[in-house]
Amino acid sequence: MTAPSANSNHASKYVSAGRLNRRLDVMARYGATEKRGVNRQALSAEDLQAQLQMVRWAAELELRPSTDPAGNLFIRYEGTDPALAPILTGSHLDSQPTGGRFDGVYGVLAALEAVEAIRDAGLRPQRSIEIVSWMNEEGSRFAPGMMGSRAYANPDGLADILSTTDADGVSVSSALEIVHKGLRDVPHRMLGGRPYAYIETHIEQGPELERQNTTIGVVSGIQGKRTFRVTISGEAAHAGTSCRAVRKDALMAAVRIIGALDQQFDDKADVVKFTVGRLTVEPNAPSVVPSAVTFSIDLRHPESAELTRLGDLVVPICEAQKGPCAVSVKELSTAMSVEFAHELRNCIRRAADQLKIAHLDILSAAGHDARYLGDVCPSAMIFVPSHQGITHNEAEFTSLQDLVDGARVLADVLCELTSQEASSCRAS
Amino acid sequence: MTAPSANSNHASKYVSAGRLNRRLDVMARYGATEKRGVNRQALSAEDLQAQLQMVRWAAELELRPSTDPAGNLFIRYEGTDPALAPILTGSHLDSQPTGGRFDGVYGVLAALEAVEAIRDAGLRPQRSIEIVSWMNEEGSRFAPGMMGSRAYANPDGLADILSTTDADGVSVSSALEIVHKGLRDVPHRMLGGRPYAYIETHIEQGPELERQNTTIGVVSGIQGKRTFRVTISGEAAHAGTSCRAVRKDALMAAVRIIGALDQQFDDKADVVKFTVGRLTVEPNAPSVVPSAVTFSIDLRHPESAELTRLGDLVVPICEAQKGPCAVSVKELSTAMSVEFAHELRNCIRRAADQLKIAHLDILSAAGHDARYLGDVCPSAMIFVPSHQGITHNEAEFTSLQDLVDGARVLADVLCELTSQEASSCRAS
Repeated sequence: MTAPSANSNHASKYVSAGRLNRRLDVMARYGATEKRGVNRQALSAEDLQAQLQMVRWAAELELRPSTDPAGNLFIRYEGTDPALAPILTGSHLDSQPTGGRFDGVYGVLAALEAVEAIRDAGLRPQRSIEIVSWMNEEGSRFAPGMMGSRAYANPDGLADILSTTDADGVSVSSALEIVHKGLRDVPHRMLGGRPYAYIETHIEQGPELERQNTTIGVVSGIQGKRTFRVTISGEAAHAGTSCRAVRKDALMAAVRIIGALDQQFDDKADVVKFTVGRLTVEPNAPSVVPSAVTFSIDLRHPESAELTRLGDLVVPICEAQKGPCAVSVKELSTAMSVEFAHELRNCIRRAADQLKIAHLDILSAAGHDARYLGDVCPSAMIFVPSHQGITHNEAEFTSLQDLVDGARVLADVLCELTSQEASSCRAS
Repeated sequence: MTAPSANSNHASKYVSAGRLNRRLDVMARYGATEKRGVNRQALSAEDLQAQLQMVRWAAELELRPSTDPAGNLFIRYEGTDPALAPILTGSHLDSQPTGGRFDGVYGVLAALEAVEAIRDAGLRPQRSIEIVSWMNEEGSRFAPGMMGSRAYANPDGLADILSTTDADGVSVSSALEIVHKGLRDVPHRMLGGRPYAYIETHIEQGPELERQNTTIGVVSGIQGKRTFRVTISGEAAHAGTSCRAVRKDALMAAVRIIGALDQQFDDKADVVKFTVGRLTVEPNAPSVVPSAVTFSIDLRHPESAELTRLGDLVVPICEAQKGPCAVSVKELSTAMSVEFAHELRNCIRRAADQLKIAHLDILSAAGHDARYLGDVCPSAMIFVPSHQGITHNEAEFTSLQDLVDGARVLADVLCELTSQEASSCRAS
C-alpha cells in the first residue's frame, strides 16, 4: 500500500461499518434488557464484563490497557514518540438502569474504530492516542455522575468519590475493588494527566440533528446543571387513626414542594430543564403515613446566571412548602455552562467538510465527561443524530450510517491532531 | 384450691403481669429493629419465628396448635364438650416494616394469657377456646391486608389471596409454603368455621383512651375503608435534553394527582382519613424523566355513604390530572363501616365494671380482622390505650398495667362466654 502523506486524512476510509456494528452488538449483550436496551450501571458485574471485552479487543490489536484509581479504563495506541502528551478520546461504558445501546458506549467504540482505521491505513502517529472509558458517567447507581472524569481532572476529589454509596449502602470504593480484581491483568496507572486534547463522540440525545437532516453536530459547549438531593423528615403514623391535622406526612410535603418547584420553573420558552427523576418513600407501606422522603432535583439552563438564580430558589421553596416536616437540601453538583475549544471545533468542521458530511453547531443539553476534561486540556465533542431525541430509554436509536460517519470524522480529526506540531500522522 | 362457682369470673385474678410482659419481650425479638420496634412482615422468616414461638408455648401448656390453608395459626384449649362451637380470640403476629411492639401481637398474647389464667384458676370450660393469629393483617408486604381473616370468613377468596405477590414478585402461595414447611409438626385444618363468638384485644392506635384517662375501650365498630392502587405510565427521557413540553413525566402526573386528591379530601372536621403511604418510581434515576409511578391510596370515613362518595372521586381526579400520561386505578379493597355485636359489647362492659376498670365506647379508626369475623359470628373488640396515639411506628407504647387490665377483662369475658347456654365455666 502506498504511504499517504502526513495530512492526507485517509484514515476515515478504513473505518469499517461491519466491525463497528458488530462491536456495538457485542457490547449490547452486557446488561441486555428484555426491551433491547441495556442496564449496565457503573461498577456492576455487567460494566466489568464490558471493560473486559475492551481489554480483549485491545489485546487483539496489541494496544496496551491500563486502569487508574478512579476506575477509568485506558487503551493506548503508542505513538513513535511516547513522551509527547497523548490525544485522549472516548466516552463511557456505563448506562442508565433502562438505557439504550448507544449512549456512551458509542463514543468508546468510535474511538476504537478510529484507532483501528488509522492503524489499518498504515499510519503510525508520533503522538500516542488513548481510548478512554470514564467511570460512572450516568450517576444512576452512584450520584452524581461523571465521577471518573471529575477525578481525572481533579485528583484531590477522589476520596469523596470513593466514599459515595449506592442505594444498598455499597461504596464506590468497594465496588471498584471488585472491578479491579476482575481486571487483574490490567496494569494500574496514576490518576490524572495533561493530554494534548480530548475529543468525545456521542449521540446527540436530542432531536436537532435529525430535524435538520444533518449528520454531525459540532458541539459548542454544554449547558449548565445543578443537582440537589432533598430529604424530608416527617413521622410515621397509622393511616386510619392519626388525624391529618397532626400528621407529619413526608410525602405530602414532597408533593407540595415538587408542585411548587414545577410551577416556579415552568417557562413558556421551554429552556429550563427541571426533573425529579428519583424519589423514595419510607417506610413505603400503604397504611403508614410516610416518615421520610428523599428526592433528586436535576436543573439545567444554558445561561449560567439564570441557572444560578433558579437553583438558588430550591431551598426557599422547600422551606416554604415543608409544612410540619423538616427538610434538608444538599447540592450534589454545580456545573456552569462550558464552551469547547475553538481550534478543535474548527478541526471537526474541516474533517466533516473534507468528507462532505453535513454539520452544524449545537449546544449540548446533556452533561458529558468532556465538561471536566475541558479543565485540563482543549476539549470538544462530535455529535451524531438520535432518532426523535429519545434517550435514557431502551428505545434509543441511531442509524449505522450516522454512527459510521461520526467515527470517520473522528478518525480524521485524530489524524490531524496527531500530526500537529510534530507532523506525526505519517506512514509507519 | 376451692372450686369457684360457674359465674365467679375469677380467671382475671390469675392473669400474670410478669408472664405477659416476658412473652411480649420474647416476641419483640423476632424482627427487632434498632429503634426498639419490629419489622416482622407477613410470612417472613421473622413471622415464622414468632409462630414457632407460639407453638412452643402451646406445647408447654399442652394446647393443640393447627394451621389452615390461609396461613392462620390456631392454639386450642379443648373444652369438655369439643363438639360445641369454640370461642375464637386473638389478633395477628405480623407487623409493619417499622412497626411497634404491641400492634397485633398483644391481642394474641393477651388471648394466651387469658387462657392460661382460666387454666390456672382451675377452670375447664365446656366450650373450647381457640387462640388465633391471622395471616397478614398489616398488608404491607402483600396488599391488601387482613388476608387470613378474609379467607377464613370467605374461603372462596383464597385463590386470589394466594396469587398476590410482594414487591419482589414472591407470591403469598410460595411464601406460605415456606412457612408451612417451617411449621412441619403443626397439623393442618380446614379453612373457615362458625365460631360461637370472636373477641379481639388490641391497642387503640389512637389517643382517645389516654386523653380520657380510661383503660378499656369497648369498640362499637370499625370505620369504613377503601384502598386503591394507581399506576401512571409515562415515557423515560433524558433530563437534560428532552423538552418539558413533550415529556410524559409520570412523577409530575403523580404529584398533580396526589395534590388534587389531598385538596379534595381536606375537611375542617378532620374526619376523612386520606393517605398515600407507598409510592414507587421507575426507573428512579436522577437524570431520567420517570416512565412509571405506582402509588397506594388509603381512604377511610366512619359513614359508609360518605366513604362511597369520596372513593368514587378517585378515578375522575386521576383522569383530570394525568396530563399526557396514561393512568389506571385498581380498587384493592372496599370495606364499609361495621358495627360490633351488642351482646358482646355488654359482656365486655360487665367484665370491666366487675373489675372496677374504667371503660368507654369507641369507634375503631383502624381496620382489624374482627371486621371479617363479624361476617361469620358475633364479634367484638377490647381496646387498651396507645401512648399519644403513636402507632405503625417503632415508638408505639402501652403501659404494662393497661396491657394487663386488657387481658383481665378478656379472661373474664371468655369465662362468661364459655359458661353461656352450657353453664360450662366450671371447676375442672
